[in-house]
Amino acid sequence: MAFDRLIENIVKMQNPTVAGLDPKLDYVPESIKKRCFAEYGKTLEGAAAALLEFNKALIDALYDIVPAVKPQAAYYEMYGWQGVKALSDTVAYARSKGMFVITDGKRNDIGTTMEAYAAAHLGTTDVGGESFDAFGADALTVNGYLGTDGIKPLAAICSEKDKGIFVLVKTSNPSSGELQDMKLDTDERVYEHMGRMCESWGQSLGGKYGYSGVGAVVGATYPEQLKEMREKCPHTFFLVPGYGAQGGGAEDVKLAFDKNGLGAVINSSRGIMCAWKKQGLTEEDFTQAARSEAVRMRDEIISSIGKIKIV
Amino acid sequence: MAFDRLIENIVKMQNPTVAGLDPKLDYVPESIKKRCFAEYGKTLEGAAAALLEFNKALIDALYDIVPAVKPQAAYYEMYGWQGVKALSDTVAYARSKGMFVITDGKRNDIGTTMEAYAAAHLGTTDVGGESFDAFGADALTVNGYLGTDGIKPLAAICSEKDKGIFVLVKTSNPSSGELQDMKLDTDERVYEHMGRMCESWGQSLGGKYGYSGVGAVVGATYPEQLKEMREKCPHTFFLVPGYGAQGGGAEDVKLAFDKNGLGAVINSSRGIMCAWKKQGLTEEDFTQAARSEAVRMRDEIISSIGKIKIV
Repeated sequence: MAFDRLIENIVKMQNPTVAGLDPKLDYVPESIKKRCFAEYGKTLEGAAAALLEFNKALIDALYDIVPAVKPQAAYYEMYGWQGVKALSDTVAYARSKGMFVITDGKRNDIGTTMEAYAAAHLGTTDVGGESFDAFGADALTVNGYLGTDGIKPLAAICSEKDKGIFVLVKTSNPSSGELQDMKLDTDERVYEHMGRMCESWGQSLGGKYGYSGVGAVVGATYPEQLKEMREKCPHTFFLVPGYGAQGGGAEDVKLAFDKNGLGAVINSSRGIMCAWKKQGLTEEDFTQAARSEAVRMRDEIISSIGKIKIV
Repeated sequence: MAFDRLIENIVKMQNPTVAGLDPKLDYVPESIKKRCFAEYGKTLEGAAAALLEFNKALIDALYDIVPAVKPQAAYYEMYGWQGVKALSDTVAYARSKGMFVITDGKRNDIGTTMEAYAAAHLGTTDVGGESFDAFGADALTVNGYLGTDGIKPLAAICSEKDKGIFVLVKTSNPSSGELQDMKLDTDERVYEHMGRMCESWGQSLGGKYGYSGVGAVVGATYPEQLKEMREKCPHTFFLVPGYGAQGGGAEDVKLAFDKNGLGAVINSSRGIMCAWKKQGLTEEDFTQAARSEAVRMRDEIISSIGKIKIV
């Protein structure tokens, strides 16, 4: 349960990374856009078709070497329900290729409303006795500002359906400290308090490899905090943004892992999607460039952390 | 700009309330479901059609006496992209009737990703030079855990397009205190700190009536904090959940208003959608029941706060 399937993918591929699918239309090669606009017009439907084709090509290029993908919901929502359909189709396609899918939605609410998000993204929806996967991802990012009432409604689905969540703890952006680094009168900082809540929420959702179904988002851009949280949250699996474009390097992300090389998955979005730019290729070579960047990133991280072992 | 249009609606109707559209399929009358399932089957599409028909009937029953609606995104997402299309159609229908639409999505992210959410819900999306409203609401609820990087990307749209945001400050749920009530070593509590950030974020987004485009969610279930925040955040318009079903009464929500009866809009979701149950009517009378509950709520609040004035 929990993140066991993600961990097994990581160990099998010896690759603790996740490819972010944040498909801005600007990133999509002209040839794809041209074809989709010809078929559907310069419309939300046309844009959504282009995003989906772009994503599928990336997934085809990555699925045998990268264990997971992380579509970012915002980039689909901006293309309306048509874009949201492309999100749903992307999730289904990645899962059909065996990838672990983390929907990055940072959803948050309470009670039955949070149950609705859980059903939407991780569970199933009942319609008059018939059951449907609305989006059907393996994990969802969530925001814990509302406390236990916003997390508990996900627990049943995580446990029954073998799914996981990543709670925002210490985010990678420059202003994350405005709230997250504030010191409480208990002497903890807000992000530590949130990390401790993750450990507590995860207690009833233990997995085979020592990590619970409640993970945490901890950014690569704050290596000290990453190290600190790795020590303080030994059962919490980390989703680590901020590698590459945002400035985090292999020595920074190394701090997210335990001594067996487990405990974290490192995200790269633009670095992989737009790899052709850095490699001096044309945009038509984006899949080949994405694959070689994914290999480079894997090798860089593995050479830093060593062989990943399940013990 | 900002919440001026909402305020004008409120003053004109002498009604500082918003009807929450959280359409669980269980709340939709059998006759609507039967018709939609006959046309589309017991499918996500059939469910979405039923939600939309339910919402339209509620909007028709309320639009001349209630200034705003608040669709809750989770209840649409759980029905997949088909449900999300129903959200989009609901927003458009309510706006066509002159209602101010607050999409309750509690979205949060940073930089270009938050810009994508802003475009999705409040702004427009460009597709090869053509411009589209993806969802096109007037305001969006957001979560400020990520700090300024998560709020600033919304400012341009709020200012250019006459839109607003409501940042979660003190939520109405029982566990909201687990983080929000924690005391910082500055002697402020987390919710006060967040409230102060709202005042600061709103400085460049001032409106005609003294309230900025950055509002706050403050629950009716914590009247002391509601009173405190009203005093400490004089330029921040409040969206107040927790009235009715969650326990907040008219004397509690009174504390959210300034001396002119401005400064807040009080939400009721189930109370209005399921009013027929309380009134001993059949579900086929849900629109009539919703309207009379909206009138009762309006009269109760107005008798508590007095006539609402723009000064």
